[in-house]
Amino acid sequence: MTDEKLLQKLSEYERKRFAYTHASGIMYYDGDTVAPPGSYLVRGDTMGELAMLSYKLSTGKRFEDMLGELIARKENFDAVTKRKIELLKRDYDEIKNVPAREYADYARLLVESMNAWREAKKNNSFETFLPFLTRVFETVKRFARYMAPDSDPYDTMLDRYEKGLTVKACDGFFGKLRARLVPLAAEIAPRYENVDDSAFRGCYPAALQREFSEYLMGVMGLDRERCIIGETEHPFTTNFSKYDVRITTHYYEDSPVSSMYSVIHEGGHALYELGVGDDITLGICGGGVSMAIHESQSRFYENIIGRSREFTAMILPYLRKQFAPRLDGVTPEEFWRVVTVVKPSLIRTEADEVTYALHVMVRYELEKQIVAGNLKVKDLPGEWNRLYREYLGVDVPRDSEGVLQDMHWADGNVGYFPSYAIGSAYGAQFLREMQKDIDVWGGVSKGDLTEINGWLCDRIWKYGQLRDPGELFESICGPLDPDVFIDYLAGRYGV
Amino acid sequence: MTDEKLLQKLSEYERKRFAYTHASGIMYYDGDTVAPPGSYLVRGDTMGELAMLSYKLSTGKRFEDMLGELIARKENFDAVTKRKIELLKRDYDEIKNVPAREYADYARLLVESMNAWREAKKNNSFETFLPFLTRVFETVKRFARYMAPDSDPYDTMLDRYEKGLTVKACDGFFGKLRARLVPLAAEIAPRYENVDDSAFRGCYPAALQREFSEYLMGVMGLDRERCIIGETEHPFTTNFSKYDVRITTHYYEDSPVSSMYSVIHEGGHALYELGVGDDITLGICGGGVSMAIHESQSRFYENIIGRSREFTAMILPYLRKQFAPRLDGVTPEEFWRVVTVVKPSLIRTEADEVTYALHVMVRYELEKQIVAGNLKVKDLPGEWNRLYREYLGVDVPRDSEGVLQDMHWADGNVGYFPSYAIGSAYGAQFLREMQKDIDVWGGVSKGDLTEINGWLCDRIWKYGQLRDPGELFESICGPLDPDVFIDYLAGRYGV
Repeated sequence: MTDEKLLQKLSEYERKRFAYTHASGIMYYDGDTVAPPGSYLVRGDTMGELAMLSYKLSTGKRFEDMLGELIARKENFDAVTKRKIELLKRDYDEIKNVPAREYADYARLLVESMNAWREAKKNNSFETFLPFLTRVFETVKRFARYMAPDSDPYDTMLDRYEKGLTVKACDGFFGKLRARLVPLAAEIAPRYENVDDSAFRGCYPAALQREFSEYLMGVMGLDRERCIIGETEHPFTTNFSKYDVRITTHYYEDSPVSSMYSVIHEGGHALYELGVGDDITLGICGGGVSMAIHESQSRFYENIIGRSREFTAMILPYLRKQFAPRLDGVTPEEFWRVVTVVKPSLIRTEADEVTYALHVMVRYELEKQIVAGNLKVKDLPGEWNRLYREYLGVDVPRDSEGVLQDMHWADGNVGYFPSYAIGSAYGAQFLREMQKDIDVWGGVSKGDLTEINGWLCDRIWKYGQLRDPGELFESICGPLDPDVFIDYLAGRYGV
Repeated sequence: MTDEKLLQKLSEYERKRFAYTHASGIMYYDGDTVAPPGSYLVRGDTMGELAMLSYKLSTGKRFEDMLGELIARKENFDAVTKRKIELLKRDYDEIKNVPAREYADYARLLVESMNAWREAKKNNSFETFLPFLTRVFETVKRFARYMAPDSDPYDTMLDRYEKGLTVKACDGFFGKLRARLVPLAAEIAPRYENVDDSAFRGCYPAALQREFSEYLMGVMGLDRERCIIGETEHPFTTNFSKYDVRITTHYYEDSPVSSMYSVIHEGGHALYELGVGDDITLGICGGGVSMAIHESQSRFYENIIGRSREFTAMILPYLRKQFAPRLDGVTPEEFWRVVTVVKPSLIRTEADEVTYALHVMVRYELEKQIVAGNLKVKDLPGEWNRLYREYLGVDVPRDSEGVLQDMHWADGNVGYFPSYAIGSAYGAQFLREMQKDIDVWGGVSKGDLTEINGWLCDRIWKYGQLRDPGELFESICGPLDPDVFIDYLAGRYGV
């Protein structure tokens, strides 16, 4: 076989792989946004079939022969192809030991589990979710063992979301964060005890909030030809190449601030996906490279930009007009204080920038214990509540506001949560570098994020998966250093 | 291989076939309702891959071996399996001669063509749509030749939508309809020249119309656990088994009547799909059996039920309340006259019950001519406008209200249109039989369609594709007789 013929095979493989993932992703999105409730079992069957197709495409003799040839001739090819070969080999090593049937069963299980989670959250009933969650944890653990029989399964899970991340590194990272964050939060929180947010409570109709979302997406520079917004219980971003990126939000009619920061957060994810290079978006190197880099972008926009004095002052005139006359008396400083309140609370996605990492830590500790076999899934609610008491000092009144609040575990994403905190730390380091090159706050004050988007696109977005996350990050910022993040927070809060 | 093993193979085949069709259908629906405009090219690629999978599944040695075995042992199996074998053979004979690559290309072409049609309709620009439409007609004609090299291609197309239907039968059917309908319409139309529909014009907000749709779906007995409603330019129904049926409508804020009848029409399609038997819905015999039987159900609800004096009188109190105080002065008789106006017009989907078949006839004549090579696609607008003048006596002011109004050709549905008129005729004969068994109008007057739905479900819906449409129809009503339809119209309009 000539090199050219081999590359044709690779390109054919990429096309099919993209198509199966694309179809499966659309079904997932459809199921989560519009599909009738009664359809979920059948959808599970179909997604199982698609997962089976993906599995068969990337395993078996045909694929192994192609991969073997590609590895043998790697030096003949350009850098992008080399990277594709590297990623293919990594994926293959990951799934080659997972039996095909289990792979398809897992796809089906996730559909059922997500459905059970939605019902359980609605009815505050952990017991009905328990059998599904138990099977999800058992399955991800079994898969981790298939993937790397000699490794700690939780290390394997962490590594899947952030290449190279380990329990040891996480323990160190969170330990350092906790040591400085807990006293920092304790120092800041009392100053916000008497913040009056009553102007931002009451009736903010969803229809007006929808228009506000459109405005925010405009400010962020999200290309509406390629990016839509939908509504789901739990906001998320999904993408099928740079030509189809979808964010969702949830409108609470008693608070416009909640959806505002969901839109900015998911918009950050979307900008990353929309900025991937044209030449790689449909292939193996398409899409964002890791969850932590993704969260670094979403949390950069949500917190570093979105909760800055400059940003809040810049959008207040729009808010005043859109929700007139409710906010007529609100000053920029008052608005800023409302969106930067530091207060230990129950819901991660509503948490402030300072205590957020403590929410993540609860989940990190719990999933680590479950995977290690030191905690039973049925005991999750109790332990969840105990840790919320211990880390955040709050009492969880019911599971729907506790252990049932997030979709991640229902969806099999074990080992994902640490990425949120690491992403926040990445973001602070990106800001420090960015400020050396451009006038960040000048742009924000004018409502013009072009330079910021351009800086991030040049250094991060356009690369897709061409570079590993650690390498990408260090090439821009040097080593990860949680102190930069904490210094940034201290600076923002003037302590 | 044992019979049992062979049946397992068949069941495995059905599962995959369902999954690929399901995934492809969801992508189509998503593309038509929410997907960002920039995504359509990539979606075309993925749908092409899925079409290729379907093609490969139902052709090739593996499939042929299974089918051969099934045919050889047909007598060993039960009636449902026998019917599956019959349908499989029929499908296979249809596509076995279509080259795989052309099959996938065609799926891609339809995505592009639908996109071009949407743009062209919006911009009133037939020229931009022309190259796509030309390729669609060329392809369906080529496919018809592959499918039945010795038949008239248009006969082949008609037969695909309504088993056994021919150009000869259509010519006879439309000839008879035209002979009695044209004088009937001429007699009725003048009585409606001065109908005052001003109360139903003006501002009817989409939000209130959405609630009206929910109400209508409730009256019709559509199970909302398995049936949703969305919004598209051109209303349609799509289904992925009886567990997931979706209708769409289009809200015109200056007229609540338009969407009302779209919802009832599509609701009729949906009831049919929701009523297919549990045991067959996911397999080869699942889904409605033909386009004409489908249209007989949708048009039965839209016109025979929905435009009856009983139905309109029954829903008027809701309308008065929902759109208060606009309709306070409207009497049941006035409302009935507004929705039963007979007036030759431009838009098929807005046409009255009497002139509707003339709209269908224009399309029938044109597609017949194009397929026969007697008319060029570029000359369609001119001929369209000429026939509207000739059959309906109206001048078409622009292509967006003329040849560009329907999505069917853009979507490759050539040979479909006659089903609308035949379905109307079927519906009138169903009514005649139904009235022998149950108190149709008593139920409608009470807003209770349970008996009607039950009658149709027992005789039509539950069978899915277990019986061919002609056989199914004749088993209930005897031979098709357009005079029953015309007598029904004459009765409704009292002439």
